Amino acid sequence: MKKSDNLKLRIIPLGGLEAIGMNITAFEYGDSIIVVDCGLAFPEDGMYGIDLCVPVITYLQENIEKVRGFFITHGHEDHIGALPYVLLEVNVPIYATKLTIGLIDHKLEEHGLLGKVRRKIVKYGQHINAGDFRVEFIKTNHSIQDAAALAIYSPVGIVVHTGDFKVDYTPVYGDAIDLQRFGELGKKGVLAIMCDSTNAERPGFTMTEKKVGKIFEAIFSEHEKQRIIIATFASNVDRVQQIINTAHRFDRKVVVEGRSMVNIISIASELGYLDIPKNTLIDVEELKNYPDDRMVLITTGSQGEPLAALSRMANGTHRKVKISPNDLIVFSSNPIPGNEKAVSRIINELYRLSADVIFQDTHVSGHACQEEIKLIYSLLHPTYSIPVHGEFKHRKAQAQLALELGMPKENVLMISSGDVLEIDENGAEVTGKVPAGSVFVDGLGIGDVGNIVMRDRQHLAEDGIIIIVLTLESGSGQVLAGPDIVSRGFVYVRGSESLMDEMQEVLNTAVFDLADQGVTDWGRIKAAIRDAVSEYVWKKTMRRPMIIPIIMEV
Amino acid sequence: MKKSDNLKLRIIPLGGLEAIGMNITAFEYGDSIIVVDCGLAFPEDGMYGIDLCVPVITYLQENIEKVRGFFITHGHEDHIGALPYVLLEVNVPIYATKLTIGLIDHKLEEHGLLGKVRRKIVKYGQHINAGDFRVEFIKTNHSIQDAAALAIYSPVGIVVHTGDFKVDYTPVYGDAIDLQRFGELGKKGVLAIMCDSTNAERPGFTMTEKKVGKIFEAIFSEHEKQRIIIATFASNVDRVQQIINTAHRFDRKVVVEGRSMVNIISIASELGYLDIPKNTLIDVEELKNYPDDRMVLITTGSQGEPLAALSRMANGTHRKVKISPNDLIVFSSNPIPGNEKAVSRIINELYRLSADVIFQDTHVSGHACQEEIKLIYSLLHPTYSIPVHGEFKHRKAQAQLALELGMPKENVLMISSGDVLEIDENGAEVTGKVPAGSVFVDGLGIGDVGNIVMRDRQHLAEDGIIIIVLTLESGSGQVLAGPDIVSRGFVYVRGSESLMDEMQEVLNTAVFDLADQGVTDWGRIKAAIRDAVSEYVWKKTMRRPMIIPIIMEV
Repeated sequence: MKKSDNLKLRIIPLGGLEAIGMNITAFEYGDSIIVVDCGLAFPEDGMYGIDLCVPVITYLQENIEKVRGFFITHGHEDHIGALPYVLLEVNVPIYATKLTIGLIDHKLEEHGLLGKVRRKIVKYGQHINAGDFRVEFIKTNHSIQDAAALAIYSPVGIVVHTGDFKVDYTPVYGDAIDLQRFGELGKKGVLAIMCDSTNAERPGFTMTEKKVGKIFEAIFSEHEKQRIIIATFASNVDRVQQIINTAHRFDRKVVVEGRSMVNIISIASELGYLDIPKNTLIDVEELKNYPDDRMVLITTGSQGEPLAALSRMANGTHRKVKISPNDLIVFSSNPIPGNEKAVSRIINELYRLSADVIFQDTHVSGHACQEEIKLIYSLLHPTYSIPVHGEFKHRKAQAQLALELGMPKENVLMISSGDVLEIDENGAEVTGKVPAGSVFVDGLGIGDVGNIVMRDRQHLAEDGIIIIVLTLESGSGQVLAGPDIVSRGFVYVRGSESLMDEMQEVLNTAVFDLADQGVTDWGRIKAAIRDAVSEYVWKKTMRRPMIIPIIMEV
Repeated sequence: MKKSDNLKLRIIPLGGLEAIGMNITAFEYGDSIIVVDCGLAFPEDGMYGIDLCVPVITYLQENIEKVRGFFITHGHEDHIGALPYVLLEVNVPIYATKLTIGLIDHKLEEHGLLGKVRRKIVKYGQHINAGDFRVEFIKTNHSIQDAAALAIYSPVGIVVHTGDFKVDYTPVYGDAIDLQRFGELGKKGVLAIMCDSTNAERPGFTMTEKKVGKIFEAIFSEHEKQRIIIATFASNVDRVQQIINTAHRFDRKVVVEGRSMVNIISIASELGYLDIPKNTLIDVEELKNYPDDRMVLITTGSQGEPLAALSRMANGTHRKVKISPNDLIVFSSNPIPGNEKAVSRIINELYRLSADVIFQDTHVSGHACQEEIKLIYSLLHPTYSIPVHGEFKHRKAQAQLALELGMPKENVLMISSGDVLEIDENGAEVTGKVPAGSVFVDGLGIGDVGNIVMRDRQHLAEDGIIIIVLTLESGSGQVLAGPDIVSRGFVYVRGSESLMDEMQEVLNTAVFDLADQGVTDWGRIKAAIRDAVSEYVWKKTMRRPMIIPIIMEV
């Protein structure tokens, strides 16, 4: 790893800096590119019909011969979820810790890619050579096990990417974050830190996951007679472990509900990340054989997702679980920003069924608060700070912390997705821009729904559609049939007869006037139809439905 | 007001108990009905294209001869906003305090109803006779001035409806809540309380509005050199007053931006609810004549509403105000549940423009917390508790407080919109159900968008539409033109040529097969088209666009 003359390290975030999710960053030096993480984003409001968003990877495709591999920090969807899509175009080896690879493998299997991609399980402390780079995996803590920070050794210096992390001195499973190694690296000299900003607005320290175990203990002893249903994130294996431990201690059986929960629990326990006492787990079918006070259900749906198990229980459509007044539902989660209302809706429904609900103080975050961020900075003492993960305001809060720690303003770098940041010990600047952004996935289609289709969907959603069809005689342009009107999502036609009748008259006038004038140009006829109908509809309803004139010729 | 034999008071909430907003409650005794409040609700997620929701008032229409008037507690949209719609069907007098009538009048004027409705300004302490009822207006505090609780005297006892309220011992304008009158009424004997639940989950006391004035003072002195832009609720006249006072003290001019803000400020200052020192208010056009450190802007958009003034400033489309790094934007508001993400989006945009933003601890609520609710209960000592205003979980939290205060469980009544609660000193029970719910307002249409239209809009939004047109020969059923395919919101056609070509083939096969078989029944032809296309599309894309076959005959 010798430094070539004039070569700088290029850091190119391809996503993840504009909104939550879709984390993917390319590191380039000479003829080597490595990619850290490859996540998806869930659709924002107004992205109608979209299942998920994956990053634009034109830059990787265009430099495919340089790309050495994906280095994945942990197994959350916003870090691994785009892999099955991106690998179709950029099929390079994946490096990650054991549980992370387990979750990736499950994903690849679902997409029929399992035999077609090279994956390598990496241990903490292990170094992977990748062209001009070397990457070391360092133990951290997070709300999923086997999370890693990456020390990326390049010819111009070391960049430490924390991934999502927190400092948990007493984790439920495995070791605490390897603070000593961060200290060692700091002594060696660190060029830049790319650090998780999610909780950078929050003062203090994130509590240990073990605190939640104590809370479960208290809840179980206070609700001895009730059936307990706990909703949490499927991927929070430690949380699940603590629920199982508490259930076992209180002599309750455990049922797991929700597809993603069942999947992750089976992967985690197969790989040895979950320790389930014998005869504790039972099938949902056996539910009826046990009294309420012997049962715990662990379920998905803590974010109010309308199709998740908890939603179906709350609205009475779950086939196996009926909510009763003897149920206690515990939300072991906080609503992710944007989900507050959906979560409230479910809480209200559960209360209406006279169930008990606990939704506060039963969760700890997986992300570092201000004191933890300052700790990592103080161990690493980086020359540059490049805040990542989180909305702009979160990243800005981290930048503020970096300034408070005494870093010079010009060394704290707020960059955007697509920026090409060229960096070495002599300086750092954004020197270019590569394509970045979201590709929409809708059903089996990747990218076939773009901005035009989305604008149409928004238009259709807002005001519906009016279709006008007519058949003209070839040559003469005489109207042989129609004009007929078909509408959807506009008004309830029964009850709006006079509106529809008048619209038909307006339309007839427009069409037959043109026919009388001998106009046969379809473009003119369509424009006249569109103008006449939209003007009438706006005047009468102040709405702008999509108007589609269709002409046939016989 | 003599009590007829066997007659009970009927309390019928027509809205407001299922979600936030649309507060309207009918009180019926013998041949008298009075209505408390008449609010709108803003559309929920998934109510595409809907501007607002107004209550179903079938019950009032069917009993129109009994209805004596609307008694309005205060001038917020969720309490007055449906009046222009409901008055079209139920035109009875409106009783309210001065500012509330001022705001209602403005609304009626916009709808061309001003001369057509009787309105009466009521003073605190005044009693209004309305058939078998008498209604007394009692001073309360809230985030808008002139809020009133109503003591409703019926032949079977007094019901106190608090409206939205808080206890503010040191309000910015006017008197504190008339706690003495609540005490007097309690001594007389109160049958039932209908009390605001919005903050019933929050312990303690809501801070006085004056606290925000002190915060403004601190912000203004810490940011002497910057232009200050404060976003808050248009209707919070006291907040506006405090901003103006602070601006005046710091020798800054004030510009008001946003239509609703301008309207309410002009109504409030005309009616004497706002005291604006001479030469303080300037027009937005004069902005350029003053340096940053002499200016304060008060603006709408604190909830992230995409078309409000602050959003336009943040995304650079405001014609008069450009955000600069020397701006400080203060959100003097908390996000209403559901608006968190929209607010964050604006904060991020403002930060990206390098402006300063303050969005925490610059607001106090207008609603009573637990200690205030307990205070009102303790003054009134009602026989029954009927929690109102707020989601189910908020109302349940108030019910819990009532129980803690020693009320018997059967006297704490959790009812739903449409319930007919029959009540007197001997008992209370729900004896029936009347129509209740939302009517959608879209543009000029009231109720012409119902569930069917909404389902169509949701379907169109999700997957778009495929229109199939063909022209058949009358009699023979021969295909003369088509079948043609037109799609919108489905896929981007350029780039999906093979999909569209194959779909055309599938369609042709289906149509010409039927023609060969001599099938002329339109129903069968349409069904065959729908089946063939939807099956093909599902197989290829896993999407279910709306499919509309249209047949013409020549």
